[in-house]
Amino acid sequence: MKVEGRAYRSIRLAADGRRVEIIDQTRLPHEFRLVCLETLADGAHAIRDMLVRGAPLIGATAAYGFCLGLHEGAADLDIERIGNTLTACRPTAVNLRWAVERIRSLLLALPEKDRLAAAYLEAARICDEDVRDNEAIGTHGFEIIRKTWERKGKKDPVQILTHCNAGWLATVDWGTALAPVYKAHEAGIPVHIWVDETRPRSQGAGLTAWELTAQGIDHHLIVDNAGGHLMQHGQVDLCIVGTDRTTAGGDVCNKIGTYLKALAARDNKVPFYVALPGSTIDWDIENGLREIPIEERAQEEVLRVHGKTEQGAITWVSIAPAATPAVNPAFDVPPARLVTGLITERGVCTASRAGLVTLYPERRNR
Amino acid sequence: MKVEGRAYRSIRLAADGRRVEIIDQTRLPHEFRLVCLETLADGAHAIRDMLVRGAPLIGATAAYGFCLGLHEGAADLDIERIGNTLTACRPTAVNLRWAVERIRSLLLALPEKDRLAAAYLEAARICDEDVRDNEAIGTHGFEIIRKTWERKGKKDPVQILTHCNAGWLATVDWGTALAPVYKAHEAGIPVHIWVDETRPRSQGAGLTAWELTAQGIDHHLIVDNAGGHLMQHGQVDLCIVGTDRTTAGGDVCNKIGTYLKALAARDNKVPFYVALPGSTIDWDIENGLREIPIEERAQEEVLRVHGKTEQGAITWVSIAPAATPAVNPAFDVPPARLVTGLITERGVCTASRAGLVTLYPERRNR
Repeated sequence: MKVEGRAYRSIRLAADGRRVEIIDQTRLPHEFRLVCLETLADGAHAIRDMLVRGAPLIGATAAYGFCLGLHEGAADLDIERIGNTLTACRPTAVNLRWAVERIRSLLLALPEKDRLAAAYLEAARICDEDVRDNEAIGTHGFEIIRKTWERKGKKDPVQILTHCNAGWLATVDWGTALAPVYKAHEAGIPVHIWVDETRPRSQGAGLTAWELTAQGIDHHLIVDNAGGHLMQHGQVDLCIVGTDRTTAGGDVCNKIGTYLKALAARDNKVPFYVALPGSTIDWDIENGLREIPIEERAQEEVLRVHGKTEQGAITWVSIAPAATPAVNPAFDVPPARLVTGLITERGVCTASRAGLVTLYPERRNR
Repeated sequence: MKVEGRAYRSIRLAADGRRVEIIDQTRLPHEFRLVCLETLADGAHAIRDMLVRGAPLIGATAAYGFCLGLHEGAADLDIERIGNTLTACRPTAVNLRWAVERIRSLLLALPEKDRLAAAYLEAARICDEDVRDNEAIGTHGFEIIRKTWERKGKKDPVQILTHCNAGWLATVDWGTALAPVYKAHEAGIPVHIWVDETRPRSQGAGLTAWELTAQGIDHHLIVDNAGGHLMQHGQVDLCIVGTDRTTAGGDVCNKIGTYLKALAARDNKVPFYVALPGSTIDWDIENGLREIPIEERAQEEVLRVHGKTEQGAITWVSIAPAATPAVNPAFDVPPARLVTGLITERGVCTASRAGLVTLYPERRNR
């Protein structure tokens, strides 16, 4: 996507063919700053401290982080060490393990001298595949928006609610949940986005609103509490969110609070779609509520808020009494029964094993 | 309730018998500051700018604000003007209109010279009735907590989720939703409170957590997004919230986001109770979703967060791009079907007209 007229991806190889450039997303929306990763530690830090976030981008960063680690050694033991370092950074996103495993198994089959170059090639391939998949998600999801617009008589904008950030900043480009929005905007279909703030890290306010502003797409920020009320009053035509992990049974696992919006959507007969690349499907598990580990993050994220003062300083402010503790689960699991459909790079299906295998028939016999 | 060992009410007549002291709740949890109201304009400002908030306290402040206005004149025209000024301050809370109407109709029946003294007496009566009613709510709600504790085998603490602040700061004393919690704590029943932050104004983080800290009650702050996840995992035994207006049909209207928690409670079979004094019941309306006007507040509340920096300054920080607009509905309406029971000063009933008239039989024939 373009930022002030210039095309960017959220991650790219630097001009030296070795280092990796990312956008420091912790500085958004206040500052657009590129950061150069030089070592495995840099890559791990970027993932763990959420300079990059979003399941697909975490996977891409892990792939390039692997490359950076190989400069310090490419023996089998190095490969195990690098893989373990990266997978330990975030527990929930399946793409992290998926990308690490993809590079790891590729490299172990190669002679040591060929590994570094092969890893860089594979990381680039992971990125290109992500862009291609997300654009395809956009094309399939666009059809849902187009039909909604036609059903509304092609007059008023299609009102779409989204939670957290599943835009191009969460992927290498295009995004998942926002890819259909970008495709609709390109095609001249009027859309208006309700952007959930998404506490505690406020990725909606900081990233989704920033993305939509940069692309000139009409939107309003709302607190996480407001979406149900808007749906009660007919102000939401559809919800589209992302997912960090999707089970073979169609349960999804997305940013904390997604479950509440899925409940409100069902209660008000608002279609609730989840957009995902096939790489976020965890074919090994069926029941998301029981089987997906939910990352518990630092309580400071809840007790404080990050923002910019009137004087322009970017700072944290405390919102609670000093003695008050917090708990901070990072994700929740909207069960398949609340999901209208899954929008994948191969098309749209019901949120169920039966639905998923129509799109991924190679998984039918597992 | 006590603050650092000294008993307070959230509003009281000053020692001079004329002015009125309140706690500036916009400074909490960072600073406990009393403010003295001297004029009608002070009273209106305190309500409009939410130095006081919570339906019962808004009513009590309006009653005393009426008294302050009478010092400038107590003719019939003055009474109409004062009443209109006060009711215009907040549109949703029924107690505001209720308290103003109570004073207005009392005064209009009296000779002008007796009106000022009568108004002060009536305001004091409104406050005392509020304290008495809330303590009764506490006693009735306590029984629900006690039975839950017994059902759990009297071992682990009763896990209660609450939204916004319906504690003593929202009333004259005791609170509505928190009164049962205070009664349980007094009686030695272990309770643990999940405190919803309650964006945009963060009354959970700022007020409820402050109240619970002051009374030494175990609690954790959570973001508004987290309650559904906790309920999915069996970590909430019951929800108790307040209401700013309750319809004759049992619909409630409470801080934005309450509806989402009511949906999650139903989906997970968690009892969802609403605590209220009879004064918040609007017997004239049945359908809360259609008939209760929802206050739309300033978008800055959504775009910014109020808190304390590490250096101790209390300030606002922006969390969104400068060009992003926001919408800010202040309340939503959990319909009666999602409410397990209403806890009133007269006992607990189902959320329905049939339930309410068992407790308020004088309303049966209206």
